[in-house]
Amino acid sequence: MTNAANLNRDPQTAADLRELRLEIEEFNYAYAQTLDDGDLRAWPDYFTDDGFYRITARENWEADLPLGLIYCDGKGMLTDRAVAILETVTYAPRYHQHFNSNVRVTGIDPDGTVHATSNYMVLRTQIEEETRIFQSGRYFDRFVRAPGGLLLRSRDCVYDTLTIPNALIFPV
Amino acid sequence: MTNAANLNRDPQTAADLRELRLEIEEFNYAYAQTLDDGDLRAWPDYFTDDGFYRITARENWEADLPLGLIYCDGKGMLTDRAVAILETVTYAPRYHQHFNSNVRVTGIDPDGTVHATSNYMVLRTQIEEETRIFQSGRYFDRFVRAPGGLLLRSRDCVYDTLTIPNALIFPV
Amino acid sequence: MTNAANLNRDPQTAADLRELRLEIEEFNYAYAQTLDDGDLRAWPDYFTDDGFYRITARENWEADLPLGLIYCDGKGMLTDRAVAILETVTYAPRYHQHFNSNVRVTGIDPDGTVHATSNYMVLRTQIEEETRIFQSGRYFDRFVRAPGGLLLRSRDCVYDTLTIPNALIFPV
Repeated sequence: MTNAANLNRDPQTAADLRELRLEIEEFNYAYAQTLDDGDLRAWPDYFTDDGFYRITARENWEADLPLGLIYCDGKGMLTDRAVAILETVTYAPRYHQHFNSNVRVTGIDPDGTVHATSNYMVLRTQIEEETRIFQSGRYFDRFVRAPGGLLLRSRDCVYDTLTIPNALIFPV
Repeated sequence: MTNAANLNRDPQTAADLRELRLEIEEFNYAYAQTLDDGDLRAWPDYFTDDGFYRITARENWEADLPLGLIYCDGKGMLTDRAVAILETVTYAPRYHQHFNSNVRVTGIDPDGTVHATSNYMVLRTQIEEETRIFQSGRYFDRFVRAPGGLLLRSRDCVYDTLTIPNALIFPV
Repeated sequence: MTNAANLNRDPQTAADLRELRLEIEEFNYAYAQTLDDGDLRAWPDYFTDDGFYRITARENWEADLPLGLIYCDGKGMLTDRAVAILETVTYAPRYHQHFNSNVRVTGIDPDGTVHATSNYMVLRTQIEEETRIFQSGRYFDRFVRAPGGLLLRSRDCVYDTLTIPNALIFPV
């Protein structure tokens, strides 16, 4: 993997990295909107067929023990999860809002895979309650370019928040 | 309205959409600063003469019942509201900070009107209290181009937050 | 100082201002990551040798009494502070996340110094507690261009949050 800090010295590459950063922002904003709209059936379409998705506590991530609170390996598992949430789970009404910021391109592999990180914050509003920070964390992403634009080959969601219920069911 | 997802396929248009997105971000940051500074007299200047402004609960918005908590139709009503807040209302001191993110261009009308959405979060700090999320929501905007830059033809502020006092007086 | 609103009228300058805005965003995201990683030894490298850093309450800032909760004049003081935190302070484990948004270029001096502002929000997570807004505020920055990119000649962090303990030790 070529380090982005070194790439940055070359003006042409710096411009390319900026375009990539802006493209990833647009990807993340669309992804966030899909989740905020509760349109979970469309969620797997942000991934490649072999796409990987995981939600891990920062403590475990930093200890190199990335046990997933949610773990999906392949688009089939992503779809199964989305359908399961939509069809079988009952839960109190709530609204979510995903704020994404601080997108950084951290490297590019020889095969063109783009490594990037960003901050996410999910606000949740439930009946009769204040809007709260439900979860905040950092995405560690690998993107590949497909005909229709970028797709996630993997997204690791590493959360700071320690009070997340074990029954966490929604993707972030 | 041309759908932005289709526009995106054409590289030239994709570049134009990105420039528009960046321009709207700059507009929103200036707008946020004006409100954070409490400079309400300048607030109507972000709108066209026939500018429309409304704050609606998400629940009502999604039920197609956009009853406005605040509702202004035309720059005159915007100005009246701003003056009323500045001249007649007394309230405890507080600071506001508007965070704007996830700006998306969602379509362009044949007459050039730009449709866009974004997330907003207003933090409020009052004496002896922690900084809280006062309101979070989503802007649904229509922009037109004027000689000095973009102007809002309409801004619908659709809030998730359910605990907003009826006495909400400040625009967001 | 040339006012950015006037600069904006000239298309070439408007494009330059946008590039500057994007460059400052990238600077701020790297800066935030360094602090979130707890890599305090690298923090002074974001400043010039005569770099100035201060954290001030908004109330004092607006009263033109910028008494600093933290105050560093020169890279030596920044380094001393970083080392002191790393070597002598004991504190309960916590995670920080810095969200930076609403970056605005507000002016350019004849010598090329760039004035900019932005919003910051620091989320803190401590054992057995919800993720909270630890501090929100606004950066008032002056940047200069060095061979490796932008550097801070000064960063004034003006916080809204009123419940910050006097024992605040971490830079933001």
